[in-house]
Amino acid sequence: MHKNNESIISQFFDNMDWEGADYINNLLVNHNQDSPISSHEGYQEAVSGIEFKPVQSSPSACNDVLNEIENIILPGSINMGSPLFIGHMTTLLPNFTKSVSALITAMNQNIVKIETSKVLTHYERIVISQMHQLIFGESDEVYSNGIIDSELTFGAITAGGTTANVMALHIARNKAVNGIAEQGLNTLNNKSVVICSELAHYSIKKAMDVLGLGINNLVTIPVNDHQKINLKILKSTIAELRSNDVNIIALVGIAGSTECGSVDPLEEIGQIAQVNRIHFHVDAAWGGGFIFSDEHKHLLRGIELANSVTLDPHKQLYVPMGIGMLLFKDTRIADNVQHTAQYTIRKNSFDLGQRTHEGSRPANSLYLYTAIKLMGKEGYEELINTSLNRTLELKSIIDNSEEFEMISEPQLNILLYQYIPEKYRGVDTLTLDEAAICEINSFNENLQTKQFNSGKSFVSRTTLTIKSKSKYKLVCLRVVMANPMTKTKHLNQVIQHQKTIAMELETSVLFENYS
Amino acid sequence: MHKNNESIISQFFDNMDWEGADYINNLLVNHNQDSPISSHEGYQEAVSGIEFKPVQSSPSACNDVLNEIENIILPGSINMGSPLFIGHMTTLLPNFTKSVSALITAMNQNIVKIETSKVLTHYERIVISQMHQLIFGESDEVYSNGIIDSELTFGAITAGGTTANVMALHIARNKAVNGIAEQGLNTLNNKSVVICSELAHYSIKKAMDVLGLGINNLVTIPVNDHQKINLKILKSTIAELRSNDVNIIALVGIAGSTECGSVDPLEEIGQIAQVNRIHFHVDAAWGGGFIFSDEHKHLLRGIELANSVTLDPHKQLYVPMGIGMLLFKDTRIADNVQHTAQYTIRKNSFDLGQRTHEGSRPANSLYLYTAIKLMGKEGYEELINTSLNRTLELKSIIDNSEEFEMISEPQLNILLYQYIPEKYRGVDTLTLDEAAICEINSFNENLQTKQFNSGKSFVSRTTLTIKSKSKYKLVCLRVVMANPMTKTKHLNQVIQHQKTIAMELETSVLFENYS
Repeated sequence: MHKNNESIISQFFDNMDWEGADYINNLLVNHNQDSPISSHEGYQEAVSGIEFKPVQSSPSACNDVLNEIENIILPGSINMGSPLFIGHMTTLLPNFTKSVSALITAMNQNIVKIETSKVLTHYERIVISQMHQLIFGESDEVYSNGIIDSELTFGAITAGGTTANVMALHIARNKAVNGIAEQGLNTLNNKSVVICSELAHYSIKKAMDVLGLGINNLVTIPVNDHQKINLKILKSTIAELRSNDVNIIALVGIAGSTECGSVDPLEEIGQIAQVNRIHFHVDAAWGGGFIFSDEHKHLLRGIELANSVTLDPHKQLYVPMGIGMLLFKDTRIADNVQHTAQYTIRKNSFDLGQRTHEGSRPANSLYLYTAIKLMGKEGYEELINTSLNRTLELKSIIDNSEEFEMISEPQLNILLYQYIPEKYRGVDTLTLDEAAICEINSFNENLQTKQFNSGKSFVSRTTLTIKSKSKYKLVCLRVVMANPMTKTKHLNQVIQHQKTIAMELETSVLFENYS
Repeated sequence: MHKNNESIISQFFDNMDWEGADYINNLLVNHNQDSPISSHEGYQEAVSGIEFKPVQSSPSACNDVLNEIENIILPGSINMGSPLFIGHMTTLLPNFTKSVSALITAMNQNIVKIETSKVLTHYERIVISQMHQLIFGESDEVYSNGIIDSELTFGAITAGGTTANVMALHIARNKAVNGIAEQGLNTLNNKSVVICSELAHYSIKKAMDVLGLGINNLVTIPVNDHQKINLKILKSTIAELRSNDVNIIALVGIAGSTECGSVDPLEEIGQIAQVNRIHFHVDAAWGGGFIFSDEHKHLLRGIELANSVTLDPHKQLYVPMGIGMLLFKDTRIADNVQHTAQYTIRKNSFDLGQRTHEGSRPANSLYLYTAIKLMGKEGYEELINTSLNRTLELKSIIDNSEEFEMISEPQLNILLYQYIPEKYRGVDTLTLDEAAICEINSFNENLQTKQFNSGKSFVSRTTLTIKSKSKYKLVCLRVVMANPMTKTKHLNQVIQHQKTIAMELETSVLFENYS
C-alpha cells in the first residue's frame, strides 16, 4: 500500500530522471543482433503464462516493471535486430531513433495546432516539402514560399500508410462529387467506383468500406505475368464504365505491392488517368523509399504524374511505426476535406489539424527530419541498394537450391518462393492438379509456421495466384529484405534452417503415410 | 562529403549507442519547469528564420543536429513542463514515459499481426481489458477467458480520439444497415442520421464526412444552461425522425466536452437509446480519466450503458500523443468492420489488424500498461483529484477578481471565463448589444494572442454561445487544468499576467480613441 499519494505525482512529474531509466537503456543495448528472434514458442504458448489482472490500487515497484520487461516482454516479442528476421516490412531502426523518441515524448507536442507545437508545425511542413520535392521535383522557391503560406498543403502526416490511402480516396471522393461532404452518399444517383489492380493493398478495400463507397464498387483489374496491372483490360474497363455513366473516383497505381513488390506501369496509368480526367493515386508505401536511389529510382518512373502519393516512412525510411505520409500534386486539393473547430484549428491559420484525418497527434515528423539530416540521401541510397543487392543474392541461392523454386522475380526487395516437396521436384507446376498444389501449399504453410515458432529465423508467407505457375492459389514463402544487418551468411542460414525443418516435415509425412 | 557509404549503415545500425544520446538526455533534463513556455515570439516570427532546404546528399554532422535541437527546436516549441501552461489538453508526462518510448522504438513491434509483435499483442489485449473492466465492470473471469479467445474484441487501440470516434460511428453505421460495407451508401433509400449535442467534438462532424453519411445528416440538439444535451428536445427529435422513417445510426453522449468540460446525462441518454434501440456511443476522450477517481467517478454515471466508448489515454492518463482507445460492450460488434489479408492479419488469428481502422501501428499500448502499473489507480486518482481541486481554486480567484467573469461553471477540470474591459464591468452581459459583445470578444482575443506570443504563460480560447450570458457568441478564455506541477501560486501568476497584458491593451485602446 502506497502511503502518501502526493508522492506519486512528485515521484514521476518532478524534474528527476526515472530510477529505471539506466536499466532499460542497458537492456536495449544488450538485446542485440545475436539474440534469438523470439522465445522458442508459438504465440499461444508464449502468452499462456501472462494473465489478466485488474487495475491494482497501489503502484507496483519499479523493479517489478523492469523484471517484466526483461524476462517476459523482451524475450516474448520479436527481436527486429536479428539479421535472420527477413519476413516483414518491419525491421531494425537506426540507433538515433531511440534518442529522438525520448525527445518527442518529453516535448509531447501536439501538431493539431500551433499553440501546442509552434516551430514543430513548421518543421513538419519542411519535411513534407522535402519529400514532395523528391517526388514532384518543384523548384526550391516553390517550397520556400509554400511553407509560409497557410493556404497551401503539400501533404499530410498520417498514422500510417492505411490512413494515408483512406485519406487519399476521401479527397478524391469529395473532389469528384460536389457537396458530398455535406449531403452524404445516399443522395448520389450514379454508381461510383475506384479502380486498382488485384494486388492493391487491403487498405484500399478498407477505404471503400470506411468511405461508404462499398467494397463491391472496387473494380479490380487482373495483373499480367509480371504482377503489374493489365493495361489493356484497364483501358477497356474504363471505357465500359464510362459508357454506363459510372463515376470513376480514382485510379490507384501500386509502387511496390505488399504481396510481391511489383510496381505498376505508373507512367502509362498516369497518362490514362490524365486523358480520362480521373484522380490518380499512387500507393508507394513500400516502394517510395527507392526515390532516394539514383541507381534505382527509375523503377518509380511516372510517380510524378500522380495527384496523390502515399509514402510510409516507417518502412523503407527506417523511422518508427506511427508515421505515414500523403503528398498532393495540387496544393489546394486538401481543401476538399477541411474541418475547423472554434477552440482550436482555426481557419486561415497554420493549424495542421485543419486538413488531416486525425486530430491530436505527435510530432513524429521529427523522426523523419532528423533521419534525413543524419543519414542524407547517400545513407538512404545505400540502404535501398544494399537491400536490393541482398535480394538478388537470395534469388541466386534459391535458384541454386533444388528444394526451392522462385515464384515471382523480385522487382524491388520482396521475393516469393516455395519449398517443393521431393516428390514434386522437376515437375512443371502448371501440370499439377488441385490436390497436388494443395499438398505443396500445406507443406509450405507448415514450414513457415514451424520456422516462426522456432524463434530462430523468420520469413513470412502469403497466398496468391501466379498465372504463369498454376491456375490454383499458391502459398508462398515471402522475404522482405530490409534489415541492413542481414549479410550473405545470414541468407544461407535462413535457407539452411528451412531445409532442416523441411526435412523433418518430409520425414513425418512419410511416417504418417506408412503408419 | 561522406567518403564511405558503407559506414552510414554501420554507424547507425550496429549495436553501438548513438553519439548524441547523452547530449539529448541532458538537454531534456535541463529543459525544465522553470524554462519559459516558448521563445517570446508569435508563430510567424519564430519560424521566419527556419528555411526550407532540399534533402542534402551527404549526412550532417551529429553536432549540427544537436545544435538545431538545442537552439531552435526546444526554445521554439512549447514547454509542456511549464506550470504556467494551462490552456490545452496536452501536458507534462511522467518521467518514465521517456524510457518506455525508447523501449517501444528500439523494439519497433508492429501490432497489426502477431508475427511482428507476439506477446505485445497479448499485452494490448490485457490493457484494453483493464480499461474495459473499469468502464463496464465485468468479472475478472470474463477478461481472463476473453483475452485468449481470438473471436472477442473488447476494444481497439487507435491513433487518437478522433480515429476512435470515426471507428465507433463506422461500426454503428455498418451494424445499422445490413450489407452496407459491400454495397455502399448510395443504394440506401432511407435518410440516415447521427444525433449529438451542439457541443460534440468536431471529430463527429468529420466522421459524418469520412463515412459518407454527410455533415448535414448530423442532428445537433441544443444544450441546456449547464451545457448538457437538452433531453426533452432529444426525445421529441427522435420521435419526429422515427415518424419520418429516418434511420438513426447512433446517439452520441459527451463525457467532458472539449469546449467547457460539460458531461451529458449519460444515464438518461443511455435509457433513451435502449428504448429506441439506437447505438449509444460515449465520447469520453477527455472525461474518461475520471473513472479512476472513487470520489468523482459518479460524474460519468451511465457510461456503462454505452455500446461503445472513446477514451484518449494521451489526455488524462498522461501517456504520449498517439494512443486513443475504443471500447465495446458487445465483444462481437467489431465484426462489422472486419478486414483480412492473405499475407498478414489472417482470419481466426490473434492478428489485431483484423478489426482496427489502422494497419501497421506501434506498441503504444505499452505506455498505458506500464503507466497503470507504475502509478496504480491511486496515482491516477490523485492526478484527477488534484486537477479538479486546482480548477476550483482558479474559479475562486476569478470570482474574486473584478476584471474577470466566469462564463461556465467547471463540471470537470475545464473552465471558461472572460476579461471584462473596465467600461463594461458591473453590467449584465445579457443586456449588452452585439457591438458591445463584439468589443469584449476582440479584447479577449487580443489578450489571449498576446499572452501566447509572450511565451510566459498560456491559456487557450474558444468561441461559443452561452444562452444564460448572451444571445451572441462569446470569445472565452479557456483553462484546461491538467499539469500536475501547476500549484496555487502559478494560478495567481497566470491571472496576474493577464491583468498586466489587459492593462496595456486598455491603455492602447484609450490611446487609439484619443488619437
